Amino acid sequence: MSYARQMLDSYPRTVNVDAGVLAAAIDAIGDCTQACTADTDADLSEQNLAEMVRCIRLCLDCADICTATGGVISRLAAYDTGATRPLLEACVAICRSCGDECERHAHYEHCGVCEQACRRCERACRELLDALK
Amino acid sequence: MSYARQMLDSYPRTVNVDAGVLAAAIDAIGDCTQACTADTDADLSEQNLAEMVRCIRLCLDCADICTATGGVISRLAAYDTGATRPLLEACVAICRSCGDECERHAHYEHCGVCEQACRRCERACRELLDALK
Amino acid sequence: MSYARQMLDSYPRTVNVDAGVLAAAIDAIGDCTQACTADTDADLSEQNLAEMVRCIRLCLDCADICTATGGVISRLAAYDTGATRPLLEACVAICRSCGDECERHAHYEHCGVCEQACRRCERACRELLDALK
Amino acid sequence: MSYARQMLDSYPRTVNVDAGVLAAAIDAIGDCTQACTADTDADLSEQNLAEMVRCIRLCLDCADICTATGGVISRLAAYDTGATRPLLEACVAICRSCGDECERHAHYEHCGVCEQACRRCERACRELLDALK
Repeated sequence: MSYARQMLDSYPRTVNVDAGVLAAAIDAIGDCTQACTADTDADLSEQNLAEMVRCIRLCLDCADICTATGGVISRLAAYDTGATRPLLEACVAICRSCGDECERHAHYEHCGVCEQACRRCERACRELLDALK
Repeated sequence: MSYARQMLDSYPRTVNVDAGVLAAAIDAIGDCTQACTADTDADLSEQNLAEMVRCIRLCLDCADICTATGGVISRLAAYDTGATRPLLEACVAICRSCGDECERHAHYEHCGVCEQACRRCERACRELLDALK
Repeated sequence: MSYARQMLDSYPRTVNVDAGVLAAAIDAIGDCTQACTADTDADLSEQNLAEMVRCIRLCLDCADICTATGGVISRLAAYDTGATRPLLEACVAICRSCGDECERHAHYEHCGVCEQACRRCERACRELLDALK
Repeated sequence: MSYARQMLDSYPRTVNVDAGVLAAAIDAIGDCTQACTADTDADLSEQNLAEMVRCIRLCLDCADICTATGGVISRLAAYDTGATRPLLEACVAICRSCGDECERHAHYEHCGVCEQACRRCERACRELLDALK
C-alpha cells in the first residue's frame, strides 16, 4: 500500500472523495513529476538536441503543474473547488500534450517511459475530476 | 527594472504577449508565493490557532499554485494554451479565496500584507489572461 | 520496477553511481515529500493544534527540501558536487528532525506513517551520499 | 519596501536574525529562481544548443535549490539549524556554479542578467549564513 493511501486511511476527518481514486491520483502525479524531470535531463543528453526542445519545455511545464496539483490534492480537508478543478484540468491538459510529444520520441526508451507516466497521470486526474463532481 | 522584465527584454525570440503585462504577472506571482509562505508561518505563531487553520491551508495552496504558474509563464517560447489558461484561472481563483480569507484576519498586519499580495497577483493574472486571448 | 529505476536504465549516458541506490533515493524522497505534505494537513485537523505546530513546520521544511533534492538528483548527467553534497546533507538532517518530531506524535497514525517515510528517506539519502564519495 | 520585509516587520514573534539581512536574502532568492527559470527557456531558444546544455542544467538545479531555500528561510519561527545551514551552503554553491557558467555566455544578454541574479543571491545567502552564526 502506498504512503498516499496510508496517509488517507489515517486522516483525522472524513474525506469527501473515494480514497482509492484520490490515492491513485496522488501516486500517478508523483511518478509523473519525477519521470518528466528525469526525461528533461535525458533529452538534454541526446545528440539531436534541436528536435528535443519542445519535449524538454513540455516536460518542465508538466513537472511544475504536477508538483502543484499533488500538493493541493494532498491537503484534503478543505478543497477550494474554484481553484482545484481548473488546476486538475491544467494537469490533464499538460499530461496529454507532454505524453503526445514523448510518444513522438518513443524510439528513445526514456521518452517511452515518460509517455506512460504522463498517460497514467492524465487518466488518474480525469477520474479524480469525475469523483469530485 | 525587475529581473523578470530584463529577462523578457533579452529573450532571443519574439514574445507574443505584451512584455509589461507578462513581467507584472511574473513579479506579482513571485511576491504572492513568498507572502503566502511567510503568512503560513506567521499564522502558526498566533494564539487563536483554530481560527487560522483555513487561512493556513489557503496560503499553502496559493503558494503551490503560484509557484507552478510562475514557472510555466516564465517559459515564454511555447505556451501550451490548453494548460496555461486553466492554470492561470486556478491562480486567479486561489488568490481570490486566499485574499478574502486574509482580509478576515487583517487585524493581523501579516494577513493584511498577504491580502495585498494576493489581490495584486489576482489582478495581474487576470490581465495576463486577457492579453493571451 | 519504479519509474525512477526505468528512467535510470534508459538514460543515454553512463551514470556514475549505483542505479539501485540512486533509484531508491529518488523513490524515498518522492514518498517523503508526499507524506510530509499530507501530514501537515492531517496535523491541522487535530484538536490539540498548539502541540502540532512544530510538527507542521518541520513537515513543511522537509517537503520543500525533499522536492529540491529529488529534482537535483534526477538530473544525472552533471552533478555539481559542491551543491549536491550539502543539499543531501540538508535532506538527511531535516528528515531526521521531522522523523523525530513525528515519532513524538506517533499515537496519531498519520504521524506514524510520516515518521516511517522520513526514516526511510534519511537512510536512502545517507546511502546515496556514501555512494557519491 | 518589499513584501518580504513587510512580512518580517509584522511577524508575531521576535526574529533572531537581522531583518534587513534576512529580507535581502529572501528577495535575492526569489529573483534568482525566476531568472534561472527564464534563462533555461532563453538558452533553449539559442542556435548553439549543445554549448548551452551545461548552463541549462545548472539553471534548473539553481532554481530548485533556491525555491527550497526561500521556503525554509521564510518560516522564521523555528529554524532547524542542522538543515538550514547546509541548505544555505548548497544555495551558495549552486549560485556560484551557475553564475560562473552564465558568465561564460554573457554575450547573450539573458545569461548576463541571470549571472547578476546568481551573484547577488550568492552574496545574500553568504551574509545570512554569517548572520545565523
